[in-house]
Order: sequence, then C-alpha cells, then structure tokens
Amino acid sequence: MQDRLRIAVLGASGYTGADLVRLAITHPRIEIAALAANANAGQAMADIWPHFAPYPALPRLIKADAIDYSGIDAVFGCLPHAASAELLGTLMDKRIIDLSADFRLKDAGTYADWYGGAHPAPALLPDAVYGLTEFAKASLPGARLVACPGCYPTAVLLALLPLVAAKAISAEKITVNALSGVSGAGRSLKQANLFPEVAEAVHPYSIGAHRHMPEMEQELSLRAGRAVTISFTPHLVPMNRGELVTCIVETPHGADYLRDVLADAYTDEPFVHLLPGAQAPATRMVRGSNHVVINAFADRVPGRAIVIAAIDNLVKGSSGQAIQNFNLMFGLPETTGLEQAPLFP
Amino acid sequence: MQDRLRIAVLGASGYTGADLVRLAITHPRIEIAALAANANAGQAMADIWPHFAPYPALPRLIKADAIDYSGIDAVFGCLPHAASAELLGTLMDKRIIDLSADFRLKDAGTYADWYGGAHPAPALLPDAVYGLTEFAKASLPGARLVACPGCYPTAVLLALLPLVAAKAISAEKITVNALSGVSGAGRSLKQANLFPEVAEAVHPYSIGAHRHMPEMEQELSLRAGRAVTISFTPHLVPMNRGELVTCIVETPHGADYLRDVLADAYTDEPFVHLLPGAQAPATRMVRGSNHVVINAFADRVPGRAIVIAAIDNLVKGSSGQAIQNFNLMFGLPETTGLEQAPLFP
Amino acid sequence: MQDRLRIAVLGASGYTGADLVRLAITHPRIEIAALAANANAGQAMADIWPHFAPYPALPRLIKADAIDYSGIDAVFGCLPHAASAELLGTLMDKRIIDLSADFRLKDAGTYADWYGGAHPAPALLPDAVYGLTEFAKASLPGARLVACPGCYPTAVLLALLPLVAAKAISAEKITVNALSGVSGAGRSLKQANLFPEVAEAVHPYSIGAHRHMPEMEQELSLRAGRAVTISFTPHLVPMNRGELVTCIVETPHGADYLRDVLADAYTDEPFVHLLPGAQAPATRMVRGSNHVVINAFADRVPGRAIVIAAIDNLVKGSSGQAIQNFNLMFGLPETTGLEQAPLFP
Amino acid sequence: MQDRLRIAVLGASGYTGADLVRLAITHPRIEIAALAANANAGQAMADIWPHFAPYPALPRLIKADAIDYSGIDAVFGCLPHAASAELLGTLMDKRIIDLSADFRLKDAGTYADWYGGAHPAPALLPDAVYGLTEFAKASLPGARLVACPGCYPTAVLLALLPLVAAKAISAEKITVNALSGVSGAGRSLKQANLFPEVAEAVHPYSIGAHRHMPEMEQELSLRAGRAVTISFTPHLVPMNRGELVTCIVETPHGADYLRDVLADAYTDEPFVHLLPGAQAPATRMVRGSNHVVINAFADRVPGRAIVIAAIDNLVKGSSGQAIQNFNLMFGLPETTGLEQAPLFP
Repeated sequence: MQDRLRIAVLGASGYTGADLVRLAITHPRIEIAALAANANAGQAMADIWPHFAPYPALPRLIKADAIDYSGIDAVFGCLPHAASAELLGTLMDKRIIDLSADFRLKDAGTYADWYGGAHPAPALLPDAVYGLTEFAKASLPGARLVACPGCYPTAVLLALLPLVAAKAISAEKITVNALSGVSGAGRSLKQANLFPEVAEAVHPYSIGAHRHMPEMEQELSLRAGRAVTISFTPHLVPMNRGELVTCIVETPHGADYLRDVLADAYTDEPFVHLLPGAQAPATRMVRGSNHVVINAFADRVPGRAIVIAAIDNLVKGSSGQAIQNFNLMFGLPETTGLEQAPLFP
Repeated sequence: MQDRLRIAVLGASGYTGADLVRLAITHPRIEIAALAANANAGQAMADIWPHFAPYPALPRLIKADAIDYSGIDAVFGCLPHAASAELLGTLMDKRIIDLSADFRLKDAGTYADWYGGAHPAPALLPDAVYGLTEFAKASLPGARLVACPGCYPTAVLLALLPLVAAKAISAEKITVNALSGVSGAGRSLKQANLFPEVAEAVHPYSIGAHRHMPEMEQELSLRAGRAVTISFTPHLVPMNRGELVTCIVETPHGADYLRDVLADAYTDEPFVHLLPGAQAPATRMVRGSNHVVINAFADRVPGRAIVIAAIDNLVKGSSGQAIQNFNLMFGLPETTGLEQAPLFP
Repeated sequence: MQDRLRIAVLGASGYTGADLVRLAITHPRIEIAALAANANAGQAMADIWPHFAPYPALPRLIKADAIDYSGIDAVFGCLPHAASAELLGTLMDKRIIDLSADFRLKDAGTYADWYGGAHPAPALLPDAVYGLTEFAKASLPGARLVACPGCYPTAVLLALLPLVAAKAISAEKITVNALSGVSGAGRSLKQANLFPEVAEAVHPYSIGAHRHMPEMEQELSLRAGRAVTISFTPHLVPMNRGELVTCIVETPHGADYLRDVLADAYTDEPFVHLLPGAQAPATRMVRGSNHVVINAFADRVPGRAIVIAAIDNLVKGSSGQAIQNFNLMFGLPETTGLEQAPLFP
Repeated sequence: MQDRLRIAVLGASGYTGADLVRLAITHPRIEIAALAANANAGQAMADIWPHFAPYPALPRLIKADAIDYSGIDAVFGCLPHAASAELLGTLMDKRIIDLSADFRLKDAGTYADWYGGAHPAPALLPDAVYGLTEFAKASLPGARLVACPGCYPTAVLLALLPLVAAKAISAEKITVNALSGVSGAGRSLKQANLFPEVAEAVHPYSIGAHRHMPEMEQELSLRAGRAVTISFTPHLVPMNRGELVTCIVETPHGADYLRDVLADAYTDEPFVHLLPGAQAPATRMVRGSNHVVINAFADRVPGRAIVIAAIDNLVKGSSGQAIQNFNLMFGLPETTGLEQAPLFP
C-alpha cells in the first residue's frame, strides 16, 4: 500500500466538515490525522454525528490550536468566513484547501461589502487559487492555498463559463433561478431551518442579494472580459442535499450549438456530464456523489436559451470538490476517493 | 338556514375533485348532490380517499351519465381536458364551472396545437368566462360557463397582470421560474410521481413548452395590447401542495413603485395579499387556503425587478378558485366556504 | 349574529398556540381578544408566523401580564409546563383551558418525578378536569380548569379506554408503539429538530421513559381499577403533523368483539370514527382536522389483538381538543369551529 | 490489478437491482457483464435510472434469455418471487445470489401459504443457504445458491437471534413494530406509493400478516428449538430508505445483560455495531451503507426489555447483503466494495 497523506480538518462539526470526513474515511491515500471543532472539543465524532456511529476509531475532536501540525500534509478549512482566514493565515507553511468564502473573492473591498467586515488576511488573496477544479487544473499542482467555490457558483459557473468564454451566449441579462437543499444552510440553530418550517413548503431567500453573487460575477467577468452583473434568486427546497440552477441566457445560437460547446469543454472531465438529447438535469442524478449533470434547451422566447445544471451541494458543491482539488494538488488521480455512484432513491 | 345550492362534481376521483369536495363539505350554501367518477362508480368516496373516512354520508360515486341533473344548480367539471369539453358541451342548460383546460384558450387553433387534438366544442369558447376571479368579477354573475385558470397562470397572472395593465413593467422579456408540489401532477399512475422518485430531489420539466404557457400569454397579451411571449420553466418540488412563481421583469421603475401598483390593485381583495416590506412569499403562508401572497423586489441588475407570488395549487390554483367563482356566479359573498386559515406547520 | 366569547391565548409563539389561533380565527363564537408571548411581545403574529400573513388584523403580541383580563371569558394556556401552572394559578377567576402538562396528573409527587420539580400549584389539582373530551362530557360544563391531555395519551386512551373499561382487553402487558410528526417537538431551537437531522430518517426517543407515560397509566389505572404499567416507545417521523399509535394488547376476544365495543363507545361521537372492515388508520385521514380514526385487528399470536388510532397531534392532540373542551364548557355545540375536513394530499 | 469476477444481474429495473448495480460499479473485483430486465430490454440503464446518467458505459439492458452465461461467474437475482425461482432453477450450474423470497423458506408448504402458489422449484430448497451473512459464514464459501433474507428479517434477526440463541430473552411474546422507507415497496406503479399519498403521513400495512413473518419465525424457531410466533406490525414512513425495528421482549435479565450478549455476538463483525450507552439506533446512522446499529434498553414494565435495530433496507436489507454474501462465496474480504460510509444528511 502506498503512503497516506495526513490531513487535518478544521471545523468538523458542520455539515461540510462532516461530509469531508465521510469522503476521507474511504479515500485510499488519506489518513485523517486530526479533527478540530472548538465548541465540541473533547467529544467523539460519533457523539455529534449519528452517521459516524459505525466509526468509533475516528480521531476525537480537539481544539484547532491543539493540533500538532508537524506531520500534517494538508489542512482542510471548513470554518465560517472570517474565522477561516484568521486561522488559516497562521498556517501558511501547510498546503491548505479552504471551503469558506474567505479566499474566493480577489478584491478585499468586495469581500468587505458582502461579508460585513474587513478581510482578515488580504495579503493572501493574490496567491489563492479559485478552485473550480475543471477550470483550475493548471494552477492546482503548485497551489499552496485553494479557495473552493461556493455551491451555487460551482453549479452556475460549470453551466455558463464555457459558453461565456466561447462567446456563445451574451454575458448580459443572465438570469439564474436556483434551488437548494437545506443542508446548505448549515447545522447552526436557526428557527428557519427547523423541520416543520421547511417541510412541505418552498420559498425564496436573499432575493437579489445572495453572497454568492459577487463570486459568480467575478468569474464570469474574468471570462467575458468585461464587468458582468447577474439576476440570481435562490430558493430553499425541502430536501437534504442537492442544488439545481436554471439559467436563462441571451444567445444568437440554438440550444444545439450550446450543447456542442459544452460537450467540447467537458469531453475529458470525469465528473461533468452533458446529458443526452433533451434530458433534464435532476438532483437525484448526482445525490451523494461528485458528479455534475448539465444540459441546454431551446426557450420559447426567440434569442434565448435555458442552461440547467445539478449538483450535490455538499459534494461537488463543497467537500467533494475540496477532495478533487486535494487530489490534483498532490498529484493523485483526480477521481481518487470520489468514485461513489449517486444514491438513488 | 338558507337554502342550499345543489352541485354535481364530475371527476371526483382526482386530487382536484377531492379538494373541491373537501371545501364543499363545509360550504354553508352547498349541498353535494352527486359525485361522478366513471372508473370508480359504485364506490364510496371513503373507499378511494383516505381523508373522507370521517364522512361516510357523502354520496356514493356514480357514472356521469347516471346523474339526475334535474335538481342540479351547478356542475363542477374536474375531468381531464378534451373529456371535459365533450361532456360539458351536453350540459349547457346548467351553470358550469370547469377546472379543465378546455375553455381557457379563446383560440381553438392554439388549443389544438398545445393539447394535441381539435377542440371538442369550439362553439362554446366565445361565451366562456376566463375565471381568474379577481379580474372577472363583472362577468361572473351572468356567466353560464366559467373556465378556471390553470394553477401556474393563476399565480403568474395575479403577480403580473396589474403591472402589465399599468405599464409598470415591460411585457417583453418576462422570465418566470415556477415551483410546484407533486399534487399538480394528478393521481394517475406514473413512475415519475412515485415517492422515491420525487422525495429528496428536485428537477425541471416541460422546459420551455408547458401547456400553461399559451394561457398566460393570452391573458398577458390582452392587457398589454400586443402579443407577449414569455420564458417559463416549471420545477417539481418534493411537497404535496404549493406553488411559487419567481418573475424577473424589465421595468424603468423601482420595486416600491411596483408594490404601489399591486397594493392599489388588490386593496379590496379578500384573498390577495401584498406582503409588507421585503418579506418573501412562501408556500407555507397559504397552505390549504385560498389565499395568495405577493411581493416585488429590487434586482441587482439595473432595469429589472423580481415579482414573486405563492398559492396553494389545489385551492386558489384550482378548487378554491372554482368555489370563489361559484360564489360570485350565484350572488353569494365571495369568501363563503373559503374562510379556512392556512395550515402551518 | 350571536355574541362572541372573548378569549386570551397565553403562549401564542409555539406551534400549539398558533394552531389554536388558526382554529379560533374561523370559530363563529370566538373573538380573539389577546395574544401573549413574552419573548415576542410587540411583534405582530404575522411577524413570527408566516401563515398569518393574510391576517394582519390579529391582535399584536403582548406580555402575559399586560393583558386586561376584565372582559376575558376564557383563557387558553399554551405555555411550557411549570410556567403554565405558575401563571394560571393567578387567574383562577377565569375559566381556563390549559394545554400544558401541569394539571393532567392528579398526584403532585408523580408530577415532580417526571417533570423535574415540585408542582407550582398543587392546590388546583383536585378540581382540574382531565379533558379527554369524549370521557369528560359530564364534567366540562361546570369546569373552571380543564387540563387537555397530551397528544400521545389522547390517541392511546381513545383507542384503549373503552376496551379496558369493558374488560375486553387485559390491563396488563399493553405495548404501545407510537409515531409522531416533528411539530410535536415544538418550535424551540434544538439541533435534533433541524430539517436535515430529521428528513429522510426515523428514530425512537425517550425509550421507556416518555413523560406522557404516567398520564396514560393514570387514566388506564382509573378504568381498570388497578395500577397499570405500559410499554411505550415513541418514534420521530419526518412529517409535520400526525400521530399514530399501534397498541398490542392481550385479550381473550377476537378483533370483531373489540370492534363492537369501540363502535358502541363512539357511536354518537362526532370526531371518533371506527373504520369499516379491516381498513388501517392513517394519519392522512385526519390531517389538519379534529377527527380520530380507530380500528382493531387480529394478531398472529393467539390471545393478542392490535388496536390502532391516528390523530393530528396539533388538533385533536392539542388545540382542536382544547376548542372542543371550550365548546362544551360554554354550552356550545361540540363541533363549533372544528368542522374543517382533513387536508389531503 | 486482480482479475474481476463477471456478474449478471437479473431484474435490473427495480430498486433492488439498481442498488446492486450502484454497489457493483465501484466494487474492485466485479465486472458487470450483463444486465437483464425483460420489460426494458433494449434501453440503456441511464434511460430508466436517473442516477446512472453519469455511467453511459454500463451494459445495455437485455432480456434474461439473451444473456450469454458462458463467462458469468455469479448471477444476482433481483426478480419478483415465483419468477425468480422459475428462472434461477434453469441456471444451477452458476453460483447464484437470490434477493427474492423464493429460497428463504425451507418449507414449500409455508411458501405456498404465504406467497399464493406452489413453489416453482422445491427441489432446490434443501441446498439453499439462508444468507443472513453474520450467521451463515460457515456455509457461504461452499454455497451454490444463497437466499438473501428480506429486509425486515435482516433487522429483526440481527437484533434477536443472539439473544434467543443465548436464551437471554423468551422466544414467546416477541412484539415487533417496524418502520420502513417507501423504496421497500418497489418501483411498480401503485397509487398507494405516489408521492402525495405517502408524504407528510404515516400508516401501518399488512397488519399481523406480512410475508416476512414466516421467515422470521423460521429462523427464530431454529435457534429457540421450538416453534415461535411473533407479533409484527410494519408501517410505511415518508422516507426513501431506511428501516427500524423496535422489539419488545420478555426477559428475566436487564438491558445491560442483553447488551453484553449482543456485544459478544458482534465483536468481530465489520457491519454490526452495538451503540454505546443508551444511544438510540436511527436510520440516519446507516443510510446508503451496509452498516447495522443495534441497542437494548430497559422497559418500564418489569420483565421486559426493548431491542432496536436500524438498517438501510436497500443495502444491508437487500443489495449490500447480497454483495457481502458474494464476497464470502468467492473468498474475498467481506467488506470489499461495501466500504461506503453512511450518507448524512
């Protein structure tokens, strides 16, 4: 057996951290060396996570500052924004995969506008790699700090970046309606996320003002070569996992042309799948897996098309993509530890 | 006690028919005289509907042609399209409230294009009243045949008609993303509607080609004074009831102006509620009731706004609006029998 | 129109209080005079309850001690245990319907054992009527203080009391497995009740030690004429509302005999329904309504039978039964304001 | 890389077959050589299974009689009962893992009583191994035909067999209440399994007469050394996957003693986990995995205890256990291909 890389996970008491641990447990090249969660330090993972009951041998949770970093090869940050940059800024001799929002935006001013405070470590921003894996492959092997995209940006950018880059669609008048499962809201105690508040119901939130907007606009602008502003309305759907984005775009081309561009872009990608014919993406196609399904459709309004993508928000939208980035940072095959097929039903 | 009006319900074995019966049971001016469902003729309602177990005295299901129409004051049609027009066309000496699609479109050619066959009774189309109650109040008292709108058109038109009529928004470039509970798909046996196919998942369907599109375009065009085409993408959400439409519109005005127009339009309406401030509509606000909640929001893209509405697809989107129309046809107070407050959680 | 009775609701910020208000809104003889919720005093009901968005005219929430009790006819207590007795003990010149656990147990010592503290008002216990309506009809008209049963006891006792009273089943070896929707856990912030913790899952809780056990045992013992101890295991089911209890009992009689006893007991009851034949009770039969469905079945083990009942935990299991008790206390027809038919789907 | 064993899956169009394929895709020693589903022959797996959209290279579905069995090492039968025995009876030169009910009962007469017809291949019954893996380890390496237990028997027997064998509990008066997700009902078209019929609801079914009863009684009788009859009531819960059984048993011993017996029985088992302390089993602990969680609790009734187990009905309750059996039949490590950690949330 090959040597394992030793990882530390900071923030193992959130859904993102837990899903990272789920994937790391069966990753053949990972050894989980340390799990940190300040508020739960001293507890076993199985004490706070029911699904780790069968894994009593997982490391006990400790405080982040109690980690012995000497033998750690990689640090995964699953902390809230601001707290993440503050802590990770002290660990820059390690290779870091950050799942928070802190290193996604290149501009510290934009960060301050959307996240309500000055950036804790602006000096690190220039070197952070924006880890939308399929578009970061050249940078990942040498990266020291990778900022994993938000879940919505992952789905939207995978759907639109190749089309914008190829000028197949206009970078103006992009309208995105997004649907997310409730795990995206995290495990913190909010009345809005109690089962009876969410079940048998649906509603929009952060209308026209979601924090993932500047991140999408940054990356779209980069490819479009000009400032892009989008309409984006997320909705909370009564399901645990899954995210689906429906993008109405302006284009002089037909849906078939858009499909061709997407097919070219993703032909060698193990996780991004253009669906055949007019098959509609669905979150059940990717549940629990790192896969992405995409398709493009004709709209009834001339000059428009509809591009739709679905992911599992906790996997490709978060922890799975983090592992995918880790794999490429350390020279492993991209799919290592991410082979799980989707769980349906 | 006042006299009761005797009603017959055709198609009482579908979700729409059943919800009509649910409301009729407690309607103080309705007597349920006959319930028809050809495939289930001979059975008690409680045999096919679990929730009518406490109502063993409901009329037994019979075949539609076994109904004695002599003492019937009103006929509610809850039949599939085509079958509906075929049967109702023979009953024109009665006052009819039809919940099918058959009398919604004024143009028999459009009907044929979207519903896959010639209209069974085109001669009746000119006199049918399009029963979006809030916009049909002048016509309902004298109406003999009322076509209740589809569920999506009900939500979309209540959100947009006053704005289009007031020219507060452009009739071009309207983009609607819609979310519906599974009851909208009916009770017929389709693999796609089995619990494990739908639960813990979400997906779009009828992309760019849903049968409710021509109906919305007909009514929008009427108010706009020109032909309107919209982008419309419905999604299936894992909930029983509820429908939410998110409309991105082009407007030179701010959201506050749109709110003013909506407030004016609905100030005296008992069932349509403009939410205060920036409160987001949610299906849980209206579950099981005939209420509608609406609000308008600023978009991040200049020149755009977002208008959102939520209804219960089986009540205001179907059977409740049918009762509301019935009330006005027969000179009853509009809210009679529709007073139930929403069920939450 | 007849005069309305003016009510005050204490604890209007919990699911129980909200469902009471839902029912009171359409009750033809109730005027909601005051709504109290200390932590939310100053807010409108619609601020904290999405489904009251269509009811902006509801009284604003105030602190309990700010209520002017002078014109109040009845007080509904929807407070947590202990807090309830403490406050209600000061209001004994009013007629009180309490939905907390405080006045259900006749023995203050048992209360202290199960609820973790001395009873705040033991002097009131002797006069409190245990408000399982169908078994309290003689006492309700003269009652000043009515203790509404817990949700589980309501379902279990309606299923078993007539059988125990008729000695049709043994009072020994009663085994109850119970299933409840999540609203039973209340609206307070607990990680265990977050949507992702509950959805797509099921688990037992309070195994062998649920606080509703002494209450069931008290009432069973009373009818059996001897001390009864039961096995009781509740489970949390991913649904908002509904409760189903499956009781395995020892009996020398067949299921048909048990059905006869139940039929006799409930023949004139408007809300309790013995299902025909071998139809199984289901929570969907009663959702949102005050109805109860019951049936008895043969077991495969000789000398045993299975008795099953289903209710809506927030209605017959809580607020609906409270209204039912109120109706009888004030000489109104028992079903007043409780006519809503079940909501399905 | 080691050679792969070539498998054929008969009945790949049901949930059981699909979940077997899901697990086989990532099993390092399996090559999926043939997938049969008569009604869907000619279609791609991704045509009928949304979650196989990312796996276009899976073998196309063919008719069972079109399989070239010459190079097949093992046949997995995922067919309905009767059809299974009929077809598998013709393939006895292959090693067979059958997931149907056909070879579970040793007595053809019992089979006829419960499954409504004479057994199609009674001559095969004596040699069939009842594949409750943990109790069949001696027989599996040499087995030609393995009958995988039903989902309920898997959970119940893992909870109770060691206790019955050790005479720690009485074999009399065993009461089991069981809760299952909807996938257990299969993918066939039944109104009862439509989303709106099941969601936001719960109900019992097959009361006192479920087909899994004789199977449980057969195995319990075998260990008890006498005929055992149990009370068993299954309930349908609105979730896709998961099964939880709550067993009330008579015992002279305390729960701690039962825990000791279970701990001894499963100390070396990779998939069966006795939970620590008084932690309650929950289906979310095992979702999507082959794990089982078990615990024993004191009951309030003296002389009784409560034993509870949870599994994923499609994995340990069906396809996962089939793979586990396959592994042992072919001399592979028991956990091969079954390492997936549970999916939560």
